[in-house]
Amino acid sequence: MSAAATAAAIRSRQLRAAEVTEAALADIAARNPRTHAFTEVTAARARAEAAAVDATIAAGRDPGPLAGVPYAVKNLFNLEGVTTRAGAKIERGRPAAARDAFLVRRLRAAGAVCLGALNMDEYAYGFTTENAHDGDCRNPHDLTRIAGGSSGGSAAAAADGLVPLALGSDTNGSIRVPASLCGIYGLKPSYGRLSRQGSYPFVAALDHLGPFARDIADLALAYDALQGFDAEDPAQQRRDAEPVSGLLGAGPGGLRIAVADDHFARNGHAEAFAAVAVLARALGATRRVTIPEAARGRAAAFLITMAEGGQLHLPDLRDRPGDFDPGTRDRFLAGALLPAGWVVQAQRMRAAYRAAVLALFDSVDVILAPATPFVAPPLGQAMTELDGRILPIRPNLGVHTQPISCIGLPVLVVPLADPAAAGTPHNLPIGVQLIAAPWREDVLFRVAAALERAGIAGAPQPLG
Amino acid sequence: MSAAATAAAIRSRQLRAAEVTEAALADIAARNPRTHAFTEVTAARARAEAAAVDATIAAGRDPGPLAGVPYAVKNLFNLEGVTTRAGAKIERGRPAAARDAFLVRRLRAAGAVCLGALNMDEYAYGFTTENAHDGDCRNPHDLTRIAGGSSGGSAAAAADGLVPLALGSDTNGSIRVPASLCGIYGLKPSYGRLSRQGSYPFVAALDHLGPFARDIADLALAYDALQGFDAEDPAQQRRDAEPVSGLLGAGPGGLRIAVADDHFARNGHAEAFAAVAVLARALGATRRVTIPEAARGRAAAFLITMAEGGQLHLPDLRDRPGDFDPGTRDRFLAGALLPAGWVVQAQRMRAAYRAAVLALFDSVDVILAPATPFVAPPLGQAMTELDGRILPIRPNLGVHTQPISCIGLPVLVVPLADPAAAGTPHNLPIGVQLIAAPWREDVLFRVAAALERAGIAGAPQPLG
Repeated sequence: MSAAATAAAIRSRQLRAAEVTEAALADIAARNPRTHAFTEVTAARARAEAAAVDATIAAGRDPGPLAGVPYAVKNLFNLEGVTTRAGAKIERGRPAAARDAFLVRRLRAAGAVCLGALNMDEYAYGFTTENAHDGDCRNPHDLTRIAGGSSGGSAAAAADGLVPLALGSDTNGSIRVPASLCGIYGLKPSYGRLSRQGSYPFVAALDHLGPFARDIADLALAYDALQGFDAEDPAQQRRDAEPVSGLLGAGPGGLRIAVADDHFARNGHAEAFAAVAVLARALGATRRVTIPEAARGRAAAFLITMAEGGQLHLPDLRDRPGDFDPGTRDRFLAGALLPAGWVVQAQRMRAAYRAAVLALFDSVDVILAPATPFVAPPLGQAMTELDGRILPIRPNLGVHTQPISCIGLPVLVVPLADPAAAGTPHNLPIGVQLIAAPWREDVLFRVAAALERAGIAGAPQPLG
Repeated sequence: MSAAATAAAIRSRQLRAAEVTEAALADIAARNPRTHAFTEVTAARARAEAAAVDATIAAGRDPGPLAGVPYAVKNLFNLEGVTTRAGAKIERGRPAAARDAFLVRRLRAAGAVCLGALNMDEYAYGFTTENAHDGDCRNPHDLTRIAGGSSGGSAAAAADGLVPLALGSDTNGSIRVPASLCGIYGLKPSYGRLSRQGSYPFVAALDHLGPFARDIADLALAYDALQGFDAEDPAQQRRDAEPVSGLLGAGPGGLRIAVADDHFARNGHAEAFAAVAVLARALGATRRVTIPEAARGRAAAFLITMAEGGQLHLPDLRDRPGDFDPGTRDRFLAGALLPAGWVVQAQRMRAAYRAAVLALFDSVDVILAPATPFVAPPLGQAMTELDGRILPIRPNLGVHTQPISCIGLPVLVVPLADPAAAGTPHNLPIGVQLIAAPWREDVLFRVAAALERAGIAGAPQPLG
């Protein structure tokens, strides 16, 4: 059941929030062991929040636009009374959070009910959610395959129908990669749009938080509820909320839509480009646009991420290296050993690259690009072939997302309703990035909603 | 003769720009060999610009507010047809600049006449203008002493009366230090206020350009002429010009003025703190304010400067190290060898420090602090005593400026009209920093003008 339908049924007293919550808890208990999407179920909290919603309705007051809607968050969001793990064993011994993260407070204020915390790559440093401490997260469309990461638990839980809404974070693609591999919508908003207060940080200049959903109306509902200025995140800009739920019927008329070529027409398997072509055809988009120097922009993001990550975790890397996930540890260590010059050059490159890309939006409103270079690979598979070279899968899952997030552009990942239209292997899901100029999430929602109405976009049903 | 008096005399046809220019050229020829302030005299250009001003006046058109006013620029500003040297032997072989720097174009448009380029520390990396290629710049108040740096030629030329106006650059104190040691006004505007297009860069996030003058009215005239948006400097903000010349009579009434304590009440000789006390007494300022973590903020600026400088010059450091000034070479090499972690931590520190300092301006408008920790030391002197420790002079000349520029605050250095009032050794000049919140240069000019009217601020006459 969608978030919108759930809230409508609860608001109109056809359902009680308590019933919805109990059903969701039962679902999680029954089906989460398949995917390992949840790492912590906050049943007591969920029941208390649901009871509060029902009491509000019984008292004749407004329970909020997300009344009784179940949701869950990547386990790097602070939940009052729960230790924020960020996928790490090292964090398990830390005190519980004293206060919900800002975005959790926003959803609670809108009436939503928090069911728990979701699996992720350790410290958000990965694209696979293969987590040595919490178990590997599995893709609901094929349990032998990854869900993507680092917000893999968020995407898997939403794709599997355990919750209609989930929150994740995206530094280099960590919302967009799992959204694509699990076949759902994911939004990485403009840098600075949603407050990161109360979330475990990774790279201050690149970190974004955002929602996942199975349909565009739910994604818009969540995004509208999450907006709002928060002085506690220094990246936040003092802007009014710019709700999008009312724009979904507007259609893409008048928007200049182009397909990214060059870097974004390479570095992937056929299905990634076919998916873009399906959307472009449906939108009548025949223009091509070149995002200049995308490969070097991506390299800059890599270096900045490594160096910042290495510094962030340096005390633990020194004192208790054995407690890290072996995969992330070695990447963080490598980052801690970089020379300053590489990072300084990367920061310069990123600034110049950002200026060059922003100029493109003088003549285009939405750019289409692959979200992932291929469908979900099997758990544990290390290498794949890309443009005739055998390359590691893990870093290359972000080959098309990383050049976009490192300059803060808003991106909406749209799942292909019929993966067969792109000829995906085993009919596995795949998504496409819709990219806009900073602060223009509105055009992304207009395009995505039109694609959903036309039957092109939508979350395919998991097989199980 | 002041810039204002010169422009007035030329505009009213009491003097011709050509006469003023010839007199200035003669002065430079006679007296520059004492100080080595100028490294290049652009006589032909100056004569052509003066002739154009005289022709404009003869034609009955407005020659601009700085009509016929001589000025010169630190040799890191592009002057059309002149090779931009940035104090470096390495740059001498490069092609001449094809176009004037933005600020040079602004002054030319205001009618000013460019007389040439001025001495500096190589690549602006120093506080002494002891330049192995161009000769050491000497202080007009005592030719055995440094003029300060890195804009030493600019301060020496203006203090010595060779020009009423000069331009310099300030990354860590390079306008403020020589202004203090030479006893003139120097303005480091808010970060992003004046375009840096066409100037030799050092540290993108810390570089500022600004004017020097011997009286506050001239400084205001120059600053007003220099303002204006320029899309070619990515740090520029799209703001209207905010002229200050009309505010000089407003007085400091209603402004909350405080003296910086802690870091700014240490790390100097008695005359630096006495100079601040003289100004505070004249302004009736009894409040103290603590700029938190200034020493760590300064350390952050050091590391960022080293790393950026090392990267900027890396190809030449590799290929032709022998062509560098030996002093700057070793500093740049050290910067090129820093680990990324130090710089990442420094950038984090700087961001947190900036936020903490900005909060101070909720309760204060102007902060007084020393500009230099002591008066001009003798050329070649390496060490001095600071708070009981024997420390190197060169880096410590910026001990009080560096924690301010690294977070972009506007600063006006005010020279003490009577250095004896601060008991300075040998009656040498000294200045004081007036510091405000970003974009509030207006309050700095109001306070400085009031101090000048009261006879407290003003450029002491050089002995020679």
